[in-house]
Amino acid sequence: MYSIGIDLGGTNIAGGIVDAENRIIVKKSVPTLSERPWETVLDDMAKLCGSLIKSAGLKRENISHIGFGVPGAVDPKYGILAFACNLNVRDQPLKAQIERLTGIPAFLENDANAAALGEYLAGAAVGADVCVIVTLGTGIGGGIIAGGKVLGGSNNGAGEIGHMCIKVGGLKCSCGRLGCFEAYASASGLIAMARRAAKQNPESLMRKIAGPRGAIMAKTVFEAMDQGDGAAHDVFKDYVRYLAEGLANLVNIFDPDMIIIGGGISKQGERLLIPVRAETAKLVYGGELRAKIVSAKLGNDAGIIGAARLQARG
Amino acid sequence: MYSIGIDLGGTNIAGGIVDAENRIIVKKSVPTLSERPWETVLDDMAKLCGSLIKSAGLKRENISHIGFGVPGAVDPKYGILAFACNLNVRDQPLKAQIERLTGIPAFLENDANAAALGEYLAGAAVGADVCVIVTLGTGIGGGIIAGGKVLGGSNNGAGEIGHMCIKVGGLKCSCGRLGCFEAYASASGLIAMARRAAKQNPESLMRKIAGPRGAIMAKTVFEAMDQGDGAAHDVFKDYVRYLAEGLANLVNIFDPDMIIIGGGISKQGERLLIPVRAETAKLVYGGELRAKIVSAKLGNDAGIIGAARLQARG
Repeated sequence: MYSIGIDLGGTNIAGGIVDAENRIIVKKSVPTLSERPWETVLDDMAKLCGSLIKSAGLKRENISHIGFGVPGAVDPKYGILAFACNLNVRDQPLKAQIERLTGIPAFLENDANAAALGEYLAGAAVGADVCVIVTLGTGIGGGIIAGGKVLGGSNNGAGEIGHMCIKVGGLKCSCGRLGCFEAYASASGLIAMARRAAKQNPESLMRKIAGPRGAIMAKTVFEAMDQGDGAAHDVFKDYVRYLAEGLANLVNIFDPDMIIIGGGISKQGERLLIPVRAETAKLVYGGELRAKIVSAKLGNDAGIIGAARLQARG
Repeated sequence: MYSIGIDLGGTNIAGGIVDAENRIIVKKSVPTLSERPWETVLDDMAKLCGSLIKSAGLKRENISHIGFGVPGAVDPKYGILAFACNLNVRDQPLKAQIERLTGIPAFLENDANAAALGEYLAGAAVGADVCVIVTLGTGIGGGIIAGGKVLGGSNNGAGEIGHMCIKVGGLKCSCGRLGCFEAYASASGLIAMARRAAKQNPESLMRKIAGPRGAIMAKTVFEAMDQGDGAAHDVFKDYVRYLAEGLANLVNIFDPDMIIIGGGISKQGERLLIPVRAETAKLVYGGELRAKIVSAKLGNDAGIIGAARLQARG
């Protein structure tokens, strides 16, 4: 038997067919285009499921269920996507909607919790006792594993670490609050910092690399750094500081043995993690960073595998 | 059989003899005078134990063990007080030291974890699923209960919520980091704000209430507010904002069903909690505050009862 895992992101919808050994046998991705009406996003997700089944040479009967990792607050019991600011969605009965469109049982979970579960079952967090998975994407997701279980909270709303204020009165977050970790240390936070820096430093290579009409992206900062651009270096330094402030908070709060960094920016690997570890060590209580900070192993696959492993809950 | 619980604070050492039904039958308190050498603090704690036993009309043989709640990082397995910035203490083998002085088995735990355990066993958190106990004292302690257990972390360092940065580059905390929750929302944070405000507003009643040579204390702010002092009101408003920022972070991270506010300032009760709930509700992700924010029920007794209920670990 197989299951489908769907990782619904603010930018892309990634889906895969997962076998009983937590291996993805087929995967595909389509753009989310989150400014569209929710119904069209739903339709695309249902079509993606059909396309995955076909590509794998399977039939609907071979699929036990579809699991969704979604970027926001969910009620897994009733299958409701309660709130997702990056999708501009509230109170959608995703489980029922997808079951109607596909005829396959569906489950959902917060995307970061799903990714945490994926990394714990098959990736970098295998064997961890207390582990925090931090996903640096359009937003920042958090999944906390303690004693082998996802820390769900009393209403399954735990792990919204992106909406931890690290700077009272600071930058406005997509959630409306000022100074959230996400406003500084997500990919969007890095991009915003880079765009401000490029404006203030017209000679910066960041603008040149992006091209005359091109937008500065997260990778633009790293490409400009490769070419010795000072403004890009300064942006990166600030970014590392903010990321480290949030990670040090998580160390002080959870005392994890591992912090797993996922999301697009984590592809920078040690180039990101070496300075992040050094900065975080300066900030943790007691002055000693005992938690290992490592890259997610499964990349975007963590969300797909974790989502595919979701089960019906209480 | 009875046990002794000792709550070692930055200001006072409170101890009590606790019976099998989690009732304190005798309690006493002596000043910590934390600037003294550690050995003299230890001696006073041993003397306090002897005095408690005598006052209760008991003998040493009636005491199964002594439990300590201490304001810092501990290793409960080896009984080491690893780091306590408010006591200026590092790497003290408290368990062995006290056992040598008293001849009674000793255990230790972070003070906030001990208080959380006390409130969970006998106070405001009875029946909670996920609960965060926030102790507003000289510092800010945090104890997290999830599924009936204290969340200890992988090295028993979890729950250091006071050292969660809420303002990057902000006020310097006693731990050395800038912008910690504790630097703003502890009793010391309130006092520091009040002293700055009294300096800037020489006509404020806060200075008058404190007296010509008196120091402004946390209660001075509330007394001045009672008399309609505008500067005191402003201090309180700022204080509530910072406290709410930290509490909203905890709601977003843990999704608790209850937040229990303890420590000296919690004696203000609803006068503090009504504005704190309103401010926190504005800041939580999703815009709905589902967690109940209530006062600790046992006051300082929580730390004594929780400490007395500690067991050998690991």
